[in-house]
Amino acid sequence: MNIGLIGTGTIGSGVIALYQNNFDKLKSHAKKPFKLKTICDLDFSKCPYDLSAFQKTSSYKELIADPEINIIVELIGGDEPARTIIETALKAKKHVITANKLVLAKYGKELLKIADDNNVSLLYEASVGGAIPIINNLKDSLSPNNFKEIVGILNGTTNFILTKMQKEGADYSVVLKEAQKLGYAEADPSSDVEGLDSSYKLSILASIAFQTEISIDQILMEGITKISAKDINYAKNLDASIKLLAIARNTDKGLELRVHPVIISNTHPLASVNYVFNAIYVDGDATGESMFYGRGAGSIPTAGSVWADILNIINESAYGTEKKQTINILPKEEIASKYYIRLLVEDKPGVLAEISGIFAKRNISIKEAIQKGAGEDAELVVVTHTIKEGIKNSAIKEIKALSCIKDVASIIRVGI
Amino acid sequence: MNIGLIGTGTIGSGVIALYQNNFDKLKSHAKKPFKLKTICDLDFSKCPYDLSAFQKTSSYKELIADPEINIIVELIGGDEPARTIIETALKAKKHVITANKLVLAKYGKELLKIADDNNVSLLYEASVGGAIPIINNLKDSLSPNNFKEIVGILNGTTNFILTKMQKEGADYSVVLKEAQKLGYAEADPSSDVEGLDSSYKLSILASIAFQTEISIDQILMEGITKISAKDINYAKNLDASIKLLAIARNTDKGLELRVHPVIISNTHPLASVNYVFNAIYVDGDATGESMFYGRGAGSIPTAGSVWADILNIINESAYGTEKKQTINILPKEEIASKYYIRLLVEDKPGVLAEISGIFAKRNISIKEAIQKGAGEDAELVVVTHTIKEGIKNSAIKEIKALSCIKDVASIIRVGI
Repeated sequence: MNIGLIGTGTIGSGVIALYQNNFDKLKSHAKKPFKLKTICDLDFSKCPYDLSAFQKTSSYKELIADPEINIIVELIGGDEPARTIIETALKAKKHVITANKLVLAKYGKELLKIADDNNVSLLYEASVGGAIPIINNLKDSLSPNNFKEIVGILNGTTNFILTKMQKEGADYSVVLKEAQKLGYAEADPSSDVEGLDSSYKLSILASIAFQTEISIDQILMEGITKISAKDINYAKNLDASIKLLAIARNTDKGLELRVHPVIISNTHPLASVNYVFNAIYVDGDATGESMFYGRGAGSIPTAGSVWADILNIINESAYGTEKKQTINILPKEEIASKYYIRLLVEDKPGVLAEISGIFAKRNISIKEAIQKGAGEDAELVVVTHTIKEGIKNSAIKEIKALSCIKDVASIIRVGI
Repeated sequence: MNIGLIGTGTIGSGVIALYQNNFDKLKSHAKKPFKLKTICDLDFSKCPYDLSAFQKTSSYKELIADPEINIIVELIGGDEPARTIIETALKAKKHVITANKLVLAKYGKELLKIADDNNVSLLYEASVGGAIPIINNLKDSLSPNNFKEIVGILNGTTNFILTKMQKEGADYSVVLKEAQKLGYAEADPSSDVEGLDSSYKLSILASIAFQTEISIDQILMEGITKISAKDINYAKNLDASIKLLAIARNTDKGLELRVHPVIISNTHPLASVNYVFNAIYVDGDATGESMFYGRGAGSIPTAGSVWADILNIINESAYGTEKKQTINILPKEEIASKYYIRLLVEDKPGVLAEISGIFAKRNISIKEAIQKGAGEDAELVVVTHTIKEGIKNSAIKEIKALSCIKDVASIIRVGI
């Protein structure tokens, strides 16, 4: 089997490094001989490894047209030309391996159909959770389950920021700058901190676990930019942590899909997943609660997942696409949560009564209310019982309009 | 494909329950039709499910001889006749799936060779970690790695006992009785609490990860029976926990194999694995640090792993036996650890000087020494720097002989 690699950036370089350093190990697991024959990029200078052993080209078309190449590894990322490369390769009856979450989330269904029609595999273990073999496990070891829920910490940047805030008490903007300096966050961090990256990944995981198609706009999405040191401190006092969670949950009424910060108890296994680590917690009716933890990014770790996919192709042990079943997706406004709401308020009597009234007329009881500070710094923290998204939005709108409310500083979901 | 099931106890019943309740899910992942045709036991009364749909026999020979049956699931456990059943089935060219850690640890190498010679698979995901797909992952998704270490909490009984001791401050004997009452510990708990069960499982995991043969007596083994509430309390004060760990570590001098209690920092992901849950932490040069967490036992969860193996056979995606490489196994006396040593001592001056002297002449420094209590209750806790097993043993022998030492109450390794 001959492999063609397109893209020699972070993950592509890792694929080359493992080929050079771990060849004996890879070979011991391969049932047939294999060779990394050709690498393709417009600029090879980003790759720190010796590339003299490989054929080089700047044309992906030329690489795909090579009749000796059976497996194409697409690692350039982004929308186009990645999507076209994958489609062209599949139609040329080449197996394709990619780490491209965006292409998978947007065009996964049609590309998997093209793979099926051409009797080749499209594998993408590295697209979610970096080194964590969650996709393979959902398709394989966990497949006897009817899944109840999948809850993931799928974005290392935001988990690094939230962990730093939790450990050091620092505020969001300070820690974001540090993460950018360390290379854990990009200059424009919006895709990570607004939850888009996690949403792409959730749509990939949920589409496998629930054997259905999911589009990004069906996911309730909220980022971490409004989390303050005060909120983290409140969570700490409850022996809890704030994590950006991606949740897919099978309810009586349909599949609930959400990405947002959550205050979770420190007894939950996800609470101790810190810094750049990722983890996916899975609950199914067969195997029960399980969790897969590991490095969510990084050159060599992610390349490990790419090589695992390559070995599955070589050994003809790859799982094909799944038969799709239809599962109803719960409308966002039906998603229900408990809420922690931190309000900046006028320091005068009756504020709590007004707030309680707004919830009471919606038939929602307040679990806890704490008044803090005084004068200019007067705050009111309210923790509600479970409210549906739509009702919460209308209550918040009404609260914002109250004259005694200076600002709704934070709204964070509690528990999963 | 037709399946024959031998053994309708805890796991066997779970296999039947999943067949009955999750058939649609199993079928959606199977590339060929399959049927659970025959079940075999001497007594079917332990199984709480309706067995009317299956053929029944009390003769495993008859079941194996059935030419329609392609897959034999052995779930009776123990040494004989389980070993003979597996051997007979493999020689009759039937694929075999088992959860039998004892047979695997003792006869794995020869049985895997028989499977190879007969061109069938012998799979055993359920033998280690119950529902946790660690074996499949070591063979598959993690296979690009040269493994540095594998550290597991592989025994739910002892983890339940240690967690209860940690959370409630209760002593070993009290919690053991509670575990027995709850059915988490057997009337004779020795295989669990002495570390034998964990050792069988470690030998299976290490033989896959390091592609070598391991016999139980090459594992340094120590149980949890000597851990007291006092030791747990000491660990707590260090923000640490005591866990029974199974460790396989690739060192410059050879493969280190050990099962014993360890004081580990609460920042380690294994420290938050509590009660009957199991977890396996894996560090490899490709994927980095990862952890697999889940239910280590239980009827349905373990049966989920059995069905994952069955699906791998049906889909012809099972991994065969690995080419064995030779790796040197480190002699037990060369294994090095830091130690926490709790001594009951005479309440008089000079005790610490005598102890320090014994370590000093072996060139070992003491990291910490705490004197506690007075009179009859006088204690000395010493934490050493790293010592090799053999040297530790000689030092302890000398300490025991000191007139000022009433008892060496605890010796627990610190850190992993």
